Amino acid sequence: MAVNDLYRDYLLSWFGTEGEDSDVVLSSRVRLARNFESIPFPNRANQKQLAQVQSLMSSVFSDIETVCGQPFDVVGMEGITEVERNILAEKQLITTRMAKTPEYRSAYISEDRTVSILVNEEDHLRIQCMAPGLNVAGTFAAASKIDDAVEEKLNIAFDEKMGYLTSCPTNLGTGLRASVILHLPGLVYTRNMHNITNIAQQLGISVRGLYGEGSETVGNMFAVSNQLTLGFSEKSLIENLTSAVAEIVAHERRARKAFVAYSKTRLEDAVWRAYGILKYARSLGESEVLELISKVRMGVDMELLHGAPSELFSEILIASRPSYIRNLVGNDNLSDGELDRKRAEMVRRILAGG
Amino acid sequence: MAVNDLYRDYLLSWFGTEGEDSDVVLSSRVRLARNFESIPFPNRANQKQLAQVQSLMSSVFSDIETVCGQPFDVVGMEGITEVERNILAEKQLITTRMAKTPEYRSAYISEDRTVSILVNEEDHLRIQCMAPGLNVAGTFAAASKIDDAVEEKLNIAFDEKMGYLTSCPTNLGTGLRASVILHLPGLVYTRNMHNITNIAQQLGISVRGLYGEGSETVGNMFAVSNQLTLGFSEKSLIENLTSAVAEIVAHERRARKAFVAYSKTRLEDAVWRAYGILKYARSLGESEVLELISKVRMGVDMELLHGAPSELFSEILIASRPSYIRNLVGNDNLSDGELDRKRAEMVRRILAGG
Repeated sequence: MAVNDLYRDYLLSWFGTEGEDSDVVLSSRVRLARNFESIPFPNRANQKQLAQVQSLMSSVFSDIETVCGQPFDVVGMEGITEVERNILAEKQLITTRMAKTPEYRSAYISEDRTVSILVNEEDHLRIQCMAPGLNVAGTFAAASKIDDAVEEKLNIAFDEKMGYLTSCPTNLGTGLRASVILHLPGLVYTRNMHNITNIAQQLGISVRGLYGEGSETVGNMFAVSNQLTLGFSEKSLIENLTSAVAEIVAHERRARKAFVAYSKTRLEDAVWRAYGILKYARSLGESEVLELISKVRMGVDMELLHGAPSELFSEILIASRPSYIRNLVGNDNLSDGELDRKRAEMVRRILAGG
Repeated sequence: MAVNDLYRDYLLSWFGTEGEDSDVVLSSRVRLARNFESIPFPNRANQKQLAQVQSLMSSVFSDIETVCGQPFDVVGMEGITEVERNILAEKQLITTRMAKTPEYRSAYISEDRTVSILVNEEDHLRIQCMAPGLNVAGTFAAASKIDDAVEEKLNIAFDEKMGYLTSCPTNLGTGLRASVILHLPGLVYTRNMHNITNIAQQLGISVRGLYGEGSETVGNMFAVSNQLTLGFSEKSLIENLTSAVAEIVAHERRARKAFVAYSKTRLEDAVWRAYGILKYARSLGESEVLELISKVRMGVDMELLHGAPSELFSEILIASRPSYIRNLVGNDNLSDGELDRKRAEMVRRILAGG
């Protein structure tokens, strides 16, 4: 893969529509936190030790490619620009922490973009696997395979009683964080999200808006993940999350059905207007785009709107992010107004099919 | 002409774009009020006398066709349905008064729809001539020709001192009301309309919103007409109105220029969004359509929006009116919601080019 593509294309292979329950579940992700034995955690390690972590990882690079059955790019964070790092963060391939402090950090990114291994983030290794739709078990299996390949050659910090040792105590034990991104316009528009949030908490599940500042959620997309890791097996954590998500999906579908039963005309109108605005606006703010594509995607999923392939959803999601646009225009100092105009231009181009 | 076309097509020949100053002036109209000698005004006349007025008019029917050089339809108001009358009123071919009380009333409508002679409205005759763009003198010439043809055969009530006698004293003298329809989004959006209204009053010119209830104006369209008729010659009334309109047109163009200089991006965006909503909405209220087509027309006239022929403006103006839609659907009792859905469907069809 040409590394440049990472910053210029708007591929989100983990965000398609072919997955299970993809009318509600946009993507699944599993992340395993791992640390090497006898080397301090990244926030305590000196430069030599951080470099040692990187070289240990290099030694298993080909093993990782082999178990994953595809080539990887090793992206050194110091070797790319801040805008490029921000694009990777916008694509959720790295964290914003890595984008902000690139020193001695790198990411192993698979050709199909479903695997991203972060080196020297909060932990020495964060193995992330993503898939479209509801597929937590599948992404866990993929991450475990990589973990096994690493552990076969290298010594990982593990305590018989505690389990995997991690930089932050909340990750102790399995080091597992499983999460899914849900699109919940039905629950939001029928004002039922707070019920979901309350019940989720009791189940040890965290629900937070994917986009938006503070408690404001934009675009009706939510990240749902396990809060606990210690004292549970990976299997039970994944089963717990999967069944909680299945519940939320059922609620969302009921909400959509009720919504369409009571106000189909209004809904249809809102969905098509959103499409019309995306297709013709000359200036679009980032939050507005999220709200609009949420409506269009809902319209596609509810079969109210035809002729708009739902892949557009993820393409627009990436193509409308600020760093992506800045990089494409080749100007880091775009004003907000210019950014909004360029964003509208990108969206129009995607909707025109090129 | 098939009379049915009157109710089914959305032809407004007096509302095109080929006229003078048509970026601002949508249409010009002259109306002459005339009454026959020795017959009471319609509101005082008995049925026999009203019938007498109609038969007098019949006697000059062929003369009118000859001087106008085109065939006319005689539409008896009692012979058509209420919805059909309302459509004629929506097209400004008759008055709402005639639509409401059809007894003994009729309209002579020319094939090209630019001439409409109302029989037994407030006066025995109201000769109306319309043209696209700024052409008050031309429409006056056309109305005068018809007036001459009538007066050659029939005796019209005329007083040496007062001039033409009319039912309402405000029409005494010339019986002339000249008016133009102006599209003034620049003055509205830059909040300058009240200046125009004030100055117009001092010039004996009336300015009122074409659509909208009370002081609320919708769609930025205004009817500008002479307030006075008594004590002035036709020529001076028309010159006065024409020069006042030329002033307003100049102000409107300056306002548009200033607007585009200060906020071209915002304007362009608003214009294209309006187009996108018209093109895709599934439900459209009447006022909203007026606001949206005003923006689109402004965009076309200011060359911010390309690819939307400006004839659409008048087509949508007619096709979105309630009686027109009710008649087309063949249902007088459409609910507001159904009306809004049907309106959106009509607008989409027009924008799709058929």
